[in-house]
Amino acid sequence: MKIVLLSTLAVVTLMASPLIDQAKEAGLLSIPENPTQLMKLIDNAKNPITKKKVELGKKLYFDPRLSKSGLISCNTCHNLAMGGDDGVPAATGHKWTANPHHLNSPTVYNAVFFSSQFWDGRDPDLEKQAQGPIQAHPEMAATKDHVANTVTSMPAYIKEFKKAYGKDVNVTFELITDTIATFERTLVTPAPYDEFLNGCPSAMTPEEQAGMKTFIDKGCATCHNGVALGGEMQAFEITAKFKNAHVGDFKGDANGLVKTPTLRNITQTAPYFHNGTIWGLKDAIIEMGRTQLGLEISDKEAASIEVFLGALEGKKPEVLTPELPSETANTPRPNLD
Amino acid sequence: MKIVLLSTLAVVTLMASPLIDQAKEAGLLSIPENPTQLMKLIDNAKNPITKKKVELGKKLYFDPRLSKSGLISCNTCHNLAMGGDDGVPAATGHKWTANPHHLNSPTVYNAVFFSSQFWDGRDPDLEKQAQGPIQAHPEMAATKDHVANTVTSMPAYIKEFKKAYGKDVNVTFELITDTIATFERTLVTPAPYDEFLNGCPSAMTPEEQAGMKTFIDKGCATCHNGVALGGEMQAFEITAKFKNAHVGDFKGDANGLVKTPTLRNITQTAPYFHNGTIWGLKDAIIEMGRTQLGLEISDKEAASIEVFLGALEGKKPEVLTPELPSETANTPRPNLD
Repeated sequence: MKIVLLSTLAVVTLMASPLIDQAKEAGLLSIPENPTQLMKLIDNAKNPITKKKVELGKKLYFDPRLSKSGLISCNTCHNLAMGGDDGVPAATGHKWTANPHHLNSPTVYNAVFFSSQFWDGRDPDLEKQAQGPIQAHPEMAATKDHVANTVTSMPAYIKEFKKAYGKDVNVTFELITDTIATFERTLVTPAPYDEFLNGCPSAMTPEEQAGMKTFIDKGCATCHNGVALGGEMQAFEITAKFKNAHVGDFKGDANGLVKTPTLRNITQTAPYFHNGTIWGLKDAIIEMGRTQLGLEISDKEAASIEVFLGALEGKKPEVLTPELPSETANTPRPNLD
Repeated sequence: MKIVLLSTLAVVTLMASPLIDQAKEAGLLSIPENPTQLMKLIDNAKNPITKKKVELGKKLYFDPRLSKSGLISCNTCHNLAMGGDDGVPAATGHKWTANPHHLNSPTVYNAVFFSSQFWDGRDPDLEKQAQGPIQAHPEMAATKDHVANTVTSMPAYIKEFKKAYGKDVNVTFELITDTIATFERTLVTPAPYDEFLNGCPSAMTPEEQAGMKTFIDKGCATCHNGVALGGEMQAFEITAKFKNAHVGDFKGDANGLVKTPTLRNITQTAPYFHNGTIWGLKDAIIEMGRTQLGLEISDKEAASIEVFLGALEGKKPEVLTPELPSETANTPRPNLD
């Protein structure tokens, strides 16, 4: 009986093995199971991850008082309960104002694996990224002074900064956003896909494996590769062919390149594309085949790829609702105008 | 040595005991330590608390897709990380619209202990209350159909409703709001004050005990009594004497009565009063002395009462960020207009 079981496993492994090889050749990478290897991938030598910084960064991530209005936190648009984004087509912030270019909020989960941040890839890492939306006018609309004054007005925050950085810490805007980034670096979501690539053939169903093969065979991994299955700048046919090119005026970076979104947890982050114009995942797959690969992906093939994408739905880190410090007489008051 | 310790304890108990008696005479009640007694206080025979309903209710509480815009959840205005409210003077909802009467969002923590809900006390319990803001136009702005259609469009939600209510469940708007209320019923925050009243004299510092005595002696417990130290309808001198009577047009219920807010976690729920016009807790105490009790509470007395109110800061239940189900093709799309 034991021999039969081993044989069955051997057969599955033999079948899966060429697919793993094909995936690796196509540039698909997994989240390492080994914590030391994972830490190497997510850490930043200039802003090292520590437990105290992560805990503090989580509080700041959830604190709406960093915004001008007192109503919008990082978690408002990058909602950890909602696949790490907001589920609306265009990011909407201060005074209910939509992003002027009709840009969609990308997920924060696994953003640590991106080689650049924002749809136009203008920032190199999460530390720099975290400075943007806090100050952007249609988002959190705060000034650097507002953020630093808000945080330093609360003794409980100062105390935690001292614990995290030492007693002589100078709590600047940049240190606050660095601390938020540290928390974000930990938001990685290992999925059945990773288990599969890490050597466990049974982690993905035969249907998911078939979908993965279709995904690679069609050329999707040309852009959607690496650990994030995305996160790199790529040529994107927005103006020429993209079905909803008319929604928003985004044209990519100076060279017309656009950041490829991650496919991890893609089942949880509709609507899709930089302008959030397509809700159905299968529709999005077909659109990408047409626009980016110049080929017709059939309904059946798209359905198969969609099944594979389900295997990228990952386990979220447990995030306990923090208890934020109480404001004091020195805390800047909310300004909704 | 043991005898000395016992004697010290006996002395503390002797000193504390008259204060406990005085508190009980003044109508101050504690959250029972005994889980069965607590359950009796928070449960609703018509909507009994079960673990499955609480878990499901938590998801619904955090789900912004119940709102018309897809951006506002119960947790937006009753933020569990912020003492259970939003920290802005007037509740602000759909299309960035402030409450038309400039009413302040009350905390959800311990709201189960209120004898009526809303500032005008118009609803008898959390089940009925939960129906209000979801449909209110400057808040979540949804229709009953929107809410029911949204929830039933997601198989994962249906599955959880079946688990919680049985396989023949009919997921109506009212069942959804009942389930949210079940979660809210569990949001109680036992504090040092409760330990003290439950018979542990050392749970409150001598300063907190002194503040409690001042609180009772001045007459604050005339309105702020019961388990919530509030939550009952009371005459409130809004128009006649209240310093910020001009902010908003709220006049109380048909008889001019206003719901007394809870003092639990009051250190975390500034700004204060129905119209959120006073930020400082000491200022609020002095204003209430003047307006409601017709006496001048000195700065020193107010500071002492404030110290007591710190002992009402309670331990929050651990709330893990839920993972909300993914929308489907049938899920109503966000409407920000």
